[in-house]
Amino acid sequence: MQTLSRREKSLLCALLTRGGRKRSNCCRCEGLRAVREMLAERPDLIEFTVGTGRGLASLGGVEPPDFRLVSEEEFSQFSATVNHQGILAVGRIPDFAETPPQGDFIFALDGVADPGNFGTISRTFRAIGGKDVWYTEGSIDPWGDKAIRSGLGAQFSLRFRRFATLESLADCAKSFGFNTLFVADPHDGEVCFDCDDLFRKTVLVIGGEANGASAPPAGSRRVIIPMPGDYESLNAAQAATVILLEYVRRTRKGGTGC
Amino acid sequence: MQTLSRREKSLLCALLTRGGRKRSNCCRCEGLRAVREMLAERPDLIEFTVGTGRGLASLGGVEPPDFRLVSEEEFSQFSATVNHQGILAVGRIPDFAETPPQGDFIFALDGVADPGNFGTISRTFRAIGGKDVWYTEGSIDPWGDKAIRSGLGAQFSLRFRRFATLESLADCAKSFGFNTLFVADPHDGEVCFDCDDLFRKTVLVIGGEANGASAPPAGSRRVIIPMPGDYESLNAAQAATVILLEYVRRTRKGGTGC
Repeated sequence: MQTLSRREKSLLCALLTRGGRKRSNCCRCEGLRAVREMLAERPDLIEFTVGTGRGLASLGGVEPPDFRLVSEEEFSQFSATVNHQGILAVGRIPDFAETPPQGDFIFALDGVADPGNFGTISRTFRAIGGKDVWYTEGSIDPWGDKAIRSGLGAQFSLRFRRFATLESLADCAKSFGFNTLFVADPHDGEVCFDCDDLFRKTVLVIGGEANGASAPPAGSRRVIIPMPGDYESLNAAQAATVILLEYVRRTRKGGTGC
Repeated sequence: MQTLSRREKSLLCALLTRGGRKRSNCCRCEGLRAVREMLAERPDLIEFTVGTGRGLASLGGVEPPDFRLVSEEEFSQFSATVNHQGILAVGRIPDFAETPPQGDFIFALDGVADPGNFGTISRTFRAIGGKDVWYTEGSIDPWGDKAIRSGLGAQFSLRFRRFATLESLADCAKSFGFNTLFVADPHDGEVCFDCDDLFRKTVLVIGGEANGASAPPAGSRRVIIPMPGDYESLNAAQAATVILLEYVRRTRKGGTGC
């Protein structure tokens, strides 16, 4: 075991900014569940781990690689949370720029600017066994500290790709044979429960705004979650949950298929 | 227009506590969307409204009853939020203790202790046209300030009833002919998409804990949301969304029925 070097201390701070993550191509993964997920899914990415005695003990015997032991007080100085769990990993951000998407659909987030929402959506997508999450520049960085904490490290099981616009995202998807873009719309569209094509080599777009996605490209189809209460639409995380579980409903054993 | 009396000022403060709400049988409804909902759904409950010039203007010409105009600074003193919208209503808490439940199922919350989650779930239930929300003592007070803000005032369209235990809740439901209790369980149970009886004069229980509801009464049935990713369960608000939208799926025009 070692203590933190000066370089590592300054890196921990820099990784709280987008610029710092870009320069180092690393991210911070803080908290017990997120670190556990990273250790289980992508230990190869880890540069070093930091924790207190308490944090180390909470891992239940798992030996984190390149571990630096620090005091509770020292940990508080670089923790991003008020009640920290005393465990954190620093790792490289994986690059899936050239990886062809797998599965029945690409899940796309457009303008999801809240890291808590982005994290929750990532967790749900991970929980249903999804892989490819593509997003546009208006969304927050999935490798930010808060997004990783909210996502409980689901990021390390997913393949993220970033695009300047929904149009360039759609073009890239087409080049892999994912030809139809469905955009969740709070006001109008085909009913998500009835649309047979929804998961047939498609792109499913969830927008972060009350009005749905920013500017759906020409030829895209709108899909709506019906709300009989005539009241208001679901937020982005809830809308994502409904559509992702509709996929589960169709593809599970005994389901009606995609 | 008047300014706030001393009694009203002290009531605004007292209503932030459960004891204060119990003594006065009133609640605070703060923020533009929540106040709009209260004005539209239950103006009869309103005791008085308070706002700044800006807050009043944001109502777009709607005249709030018994309005007290205050300065931005004065509003900040009793607002429960950092960036307040300058509009608030105080109203009586409606009592549905003797009202028979309507609809196909009673929606029950057991131990949902987070006001944000409780509020979000209330909004979703309101959005699908639901009415009866029953809850147990381990849950937070739906008439608390934060629950009303998170619910955007959905409370004023719902009928809440509080029970000491899930057992007493189930007994009361039975007396109205709602005989079967379904408890959402993160680990095991009948699959929510396949269970034909789910909305046939039933009670649907969502628990706030990771292990689901506290102590399901004898004879209750467990229902699970399938998660193929073998990862973790959805949080209470997401689980509620999936099950409520499954109800919409079955009962909409062209659905398969309850």
